[in-house]
Amino acid sequence: MTKRIAVIGAGPSGLAQLRAFQSAAAQGADIPEIVCFEKQSNWGGLWNYTWRTGLDEYGEPVHGSMYRYLWSNGPKEGLEFADYSFEEHFGKQIASYPPRAVLFDYIQGRVQKAGVRDWIKFEHAVRWVEKEDGTFNVTVCNLPEDHTYTEVFDHVIVCNGHFSTPNVPQFDGFESFKGRVLHAHDFRDAMEFKDKDILIVGTSYSAEDIGSQCWKYGAKSITVSHRTAAMGYDWPDNWAEVPLLTHVDGNTAHFKDGTSRDVDAVILCTGYKHHFPFLPDALRLKTANRLATSDLYKGVAYVHDPDLFYIGMQDQWFTFNMFDAQAWWARDVIMGRIAIPDHATMEADVADRIAREDAGEDDYDAIWYQGDYIKELVAETDYPSFDLEGACQAFKAWKGHKKQGIMTFRDNGYKSVITGTMAPKHHTPWIDALDDSLSEYLKN
Amino acid sequence: MTKRIAVIGAGPSGLAQLRAFQSAAAQGADIPEIVCFEKQSNWGGLWNYTWRTGLDEYGEPVHGSMYRYLWSNGPKEGLEFADYSFEEHFGKQIASYPPRAVLFDYIQGRVQKAGVRDWIKFEHAVRWVEKEDGTFNVTVCNLPEDHTYTEVFDHVIVCNGHFSTPNVPQFDGFESFKGRVLHAHDFRDAMEFKDKDILIVGTSYSAEDIGSQCWKYGAKSITVSHRTAAMGYDWPDNWAEVPLLTHVDGNTAHFKDGTSRDVDAVILCTGYKHHFPFLPDALRLKTANRLATSDLYKGVAYVHDPDLFYIGMQDQWFTFNMFDAQAWWARDVIMGRIAIPDHATMEADVADRIAREDAGEDDYDAIWYQGDYIKELVAETDYPSFDLEGACQAFKAWKGHKKQGIMTFRDNGYKSVITGTMAPKHHTPWIDALDDSLSEYLKN
Repeated sequence: MTKRIAVIGAGPSGLAQLRAFQSAAAQGADIPEIVCFEKQSNWGGLWNYTWRTGLDEYGEPVHGSMYRYLWSNGPKEGLEFADYSFEEHFGKQIASYPPRAVLFDYIQGRVQKAGVRDWIKFEHAVRWVEKEDGTFNVTVCNLPEDHTYTEVFDHVIVCNGHFSTPNVPQFDGFESFKGRVLHAHDFRDAMEFKDKDILIVGTSYSAEDIGSQCWKYGAKSITVSHRTAAMGYDWPDNWAEVPLLTHVDGNTAHFKDGTSRDVDAVILCTGYKHHFPFLPDALRLKTANRLATSDLYKGVAYVHDPDLFYIGMQDQWFTFNMFDAQAWWARDVIMGRIAIPDHATMEADVADRIAREDAGEDDYDAIWYQGDYIKELVAETDYPSFDLEGACQAFKAWKGHKKQGIMTFRDNGYKSVITGTMAPKHHTPWIDALDDSLSEYLKN
Repeated sequence: MTKRIAVIGAGPSGLAQLRAFQSAAAQGADIPEIVCFEKQSNWGGLWNYTWRTGLDEYGEPVHGSMYRYLWSNGPKEGLEFADYSFEEHFGKQIASYPPRAVLFDYIQGRVQKAGVRDWIKFEHAVRWVEKEDGTFNVTVCNLPEDHTYTEVFDHVIVCNGHFSTPNVPQFDGFESFKGRVLHAHDFRDAMEFKDKDILIVGTSYSAEDIGSQCWKYGAKSITVSHRTAAMGYDWPDNWAEVPLLTHVDGNTAHFKDGTSRDVDAVILCTGYKHHFPFLPDALRLKTANRLATSDLYKGVAYVHDPDLFYIGMQDQWFTFNMFDAQAWWARDVIMGRIAIPDHATMEADVADRIAREDAGEDDYDAIWYQGDYIKELVAETDYPSFDLEGACQAFKAWKGHKKQGIMTFRDNGYKSVITGTMAPKHHTPWIDALDDSLSEYLKN
């Protein structure tokens, strides 16, 4: 009997999984029946922009953390699909830091070409999954019809992302702050904060990029509060880095060094949670956001039940191409091309990955660690191998460019490791480019 | 064997249910084992204010739709508990339109006296409920421990409210509006909108009250867009009522009559949904927000499985005292004091209620309809009977006072139908009362 596979989510990870199976079918293999459940009405996951925040039109948590005017914060040369280059999609090479609409178009192009849209049940939210007698009962809600039903699957592949459920700490005084307190997840348009004094809590990518957006679109000042260390870039004059927020009093934010500032809004860039409310304890991944996750053999198969897979649950330097490597690998386990070892071997694999990650000393080690991980997976499947060393070098150059100028790094270009061509210089410096549309970006 | 009862939610409806059972126990009855699952860390439901919006500290949808400075928008004389008067709680009679903190204190006072807090498992979210072999498997997540487990219950009483899941329509242009678009559910502090031009979509209580709040706390202008009819109160000069929003273009809102206005923020006061993502089709109530709900015998017992009860799912003129009447009634069914009739009789009861509601002509008919409904339930249990006619008269007077002055109606007082005493006039007109604290309100 044909195996049945449930893929949960049609974002970059889920779409990689669909493409992985379609690619095998295109080469003549008998593939399982694939059913992909996607809560949103379109594919693309985070890259599917919505103005909505909080709960969506069906009362479900809004998946999107995407905001207007977002440009990739890393070079596209680090994330290019090995089986579908930017040049194939756009008919020419494009500049290195595409805005959202451009990346969405690119992601979509591959799966449109693959013809997998019919495998996806849109506006279907997974309510609950249980393993019983060796198979999975997956209960979903058809949201427009408000109809719940349960289907049986041989495998479940969890691709729901982990940058959708915000980690939202409390600080004293938030309950009486007289402006907006929001998490980065709910940030949508920097224009809302024009002429305002903004406090950002956190120092990771959201903090860096949302702060830069607000600055670019006319915020009066940006204050970024850090727990351990400042980001340390060469910020503009109206940008300050301060120690950890201790509390707010009215509209005054107080920091650990005794200083204070009056602010109009607080944006919590305090990270995201792995969140799987549809999974019971026996199936639910619990891991820190790190490169070597807990409990995933090869970073993909759940060691406590390797019929279950998780794609893209790692902290990420690499993204789309890593999801591909994982998806091709999961596909090959399901299709019997790769064998799952015994439990002890899987546990040892996880422990080894954690130890190797922990042995790294800096971001460069981390980049190469994740590059090596992708190389390892790619070698075990027929995913097209590509120059991972070159992609790591692009990341290295990118980090250097950020240090040279946090508001100018996006004006640089890099060489594709898939097609070997250099990215053109974009026609307008990022700092002056206020139109983030696809048509504008492609005018090079 | 002692029956086991799951109560979902510890807001006004859930707490009424706990008090109903405790009241029977206090009179010597053997009561079932009660387990109340509450997602929040404290009781009070909507009355438990949080600054959070969207998703909470555990990634669960924020229950609260409560905002700062909210005062009751109806007289407290219409919602007073028959078994616990305002005078008993505060040691004196208080003015008629208490702010949130005062009502929270009052609700809490009764259940603190009853000693039922230990029945509640806080920070427990119900994930999934199924009926199997005559009992309910209730799967919950202990949120702080991130631990899911399933327990078996004889009855489930759904008390999760229906003013928590926003109904959020899309209007063209929202995807590129350069300010905040929010639903009333996410409104927290009117000070955020000081000196701003605000567009409110909708004409029900949220629209009326959030608009009034923004006006009171210094919004530059309030524009309220209606689908069918304007509210028609005598609004201040900087308040306009306009036809339905057709679309926004940049920050310009366009209306059906061809007029337009530039606005800084859009607040969607477009209502709420009954939302039970933890229930399968066989158990899930589907009803419009009306006085006579679908599928609930006596407005409480689910006709397709009368082991399951829903409290407070009606549209509401009456609130706390109606939940009490329903909770006492559900308790008595569970304890065998009231018999559930056959299915046809239950269906006929639902149809009859719907027909009677539909025969009503105006709000006054609706108020009396709901008053009569409460009277009917109260008569079947030992809940203290009270002067429902008097409560209806208080609502009637309230409606008159709103017509006389939408910004002054809260300066009126009414007579308690429980203790017979008149409410004192509040020391400060609502329009001037910026401090909404408990201590300030009790200074009469």
